[in-house]
Amino acid sequence: MTQQLKFILTREEAASKGVSRPSDLVKLEEEAMILARAPISGVQDAVLGLASSDRIFLGVNVEFEGLPLHHSISAEQFLVANLALNFEQELHACLIPSRFYLESFEEDVPLLLVPQNNRLAHSDPFSAAEICSNPEHCSHLKCRALTAANKSNAQYSKCPSGVALICEGEVYGGWCIESAAYNLSLGPVQAALVDFMARGEGKGFEMITGAVLVEMNDAKVSQEATARILLKTIAPGCNFSVFRCHKTAEN
Amino acid sequence: MTQQLKFILTREEAASKGVSRPSDLVKLEEEAMILARAPISGVQDAVLGLASSDRIFLGVNVEFEGLPLHHSISAEQFLVANLALNFEQELHACLIPSRFYLESFEEDVPLLLVPQNNRLAHSDPFSAAEICSNPEHCSHLKCRALTAANKSNAQYSKCPSGVALICEGEVYGGWCIESAAYNLSLGPVQAALVDFMARGEGKGFEMITGAVLVEMNDAKVSQEATARILLKTIAPGCNFSVFRCHKTAEN
Repeated sequence: MTQQLKFILTREEAASKGVSRPSDLVKLEEEAMILARAPISGVQDAVLGLASSDRIFLGVNVEFEGLPLHHSISAEQFLVANLALNFEQELHACLIPSRFYLESFEEDVPLLLVPQNNRLAHSDPFSAAEICSNPEHCSHLKCRALTAANKSNAQYSKCPSGVALICEGEVYGGWCIESAAYNLSLGPVQAALVDFMARGEGKGFEMITGAVLVEMNDAKVSQEATARILLKTIAPGCNFSVFRCHKTAEN
Repeated sequence: MTQQLKFILTREEAASKGVSRPSDLVKLEEEAMILARAPISGVQDAVLGLASSDRIFLGVNVEFEGLPLHHSISAEQFLVANLALNFEQELHACLIPSRFYLESFEEDVPLLLVPQNNRLAHSDPFSAAEICSNPEHCSHLKCRALTAANKSNAQYSKCPSGVALICEGEVYGGWCIESAAYNLSLGPVQAALVDFMARGEGKGFEMITGAVLVEMNDAKVSQEATARILLKTIAPGCNFSVFRCHKTAEN
């Protein structure tokens, strides 16, 4: 069985596929499109990005059968989330099949990729006390969801939020990434699903068994209801819980 | 109290405000922006369109406090829905504040505005029997929601759907308008809220007391869960029910 294309390729891995210059990205397009999940429309879409680390990042479209299309993840959103999840701040080239364009973002880092630190803490004292010493990489959903919320880019609603998912002991995380075109804002579950697809070796969403959402107490925007219907639709067996957080005083 | 700008202006009404050529549209921009409802970001946006009927149509952005931004209605979506709701098929000029452009759609009518007839009928025999002789204009939510579903443009999911809302005896309807950029697809509730804002004389969403969604039996995409959280958030007292429909054999 031919090995599936990975969602992140090192320079060497890309070179082994004949990709050494931005214009070569098109060689990966077909393999990338196969990774899209489009059960509603059947239309598979893919974008590829060359980041400043010389790694190549993929973005594919993801639709959630049973839910309206506006819950979908576009290939471009997937790419942005994939870059953000992996701390990339510069995109040097981007292949969007309909048009190839080479754009360097060296001067101004796109706001979506600027690392955030929202200085959030769990409001529930028990949850706060449970935060371990390695919240970036541990397998505690409460730690990882809070870590994700702290990276959230919610410049329009001022309501950062993060989600952690667990599947077969592995934790995947993502955070809300708001876009100036509001409808293109990416919810925290969608962002965590990008991490799940990128690192989950093709596992189905139904294999996700646990999920935690962390969002602010007095949030003008709550992700809870939307997250709940998305998870209930794609992973009916998933145990979903929500924890509140607040901004800590120290800046 | 100065009279609020209407969401649809006749040629005469526009002329009385000094608007007689496309480039005059900018004169209405300020008044239009006031009509936007942006409780989350506070950013009010407006677009104006000159249709083939010489009427001027407004679009404003609408955010729903409590829900993620991707549930929002952008000003452009509002304009498209406003045109579709009023059977307009040609947009001769469009003012988008960031850039004014005059684009004529005479040759190819944008798919979003092409009238559809999905030939749907209520699947529940009782509901089917209740359909009156004037389903376009009656005040029966089941009739008006089915009429709306029949106009729905769901070319990607093949799952048309329609919603009818009632407030103080007046019925407002709208249908799902899918976009090639899936995230910009407009849900049926959002489209009905465009009708509500356009004709509801500034009434608050909380005054909506009843809503019916009609969607297909075996729908790959169900609007129900998303419609439910939107209505529960903006009109907690609204009585919401869902009815299934199917495509009739005759074409």
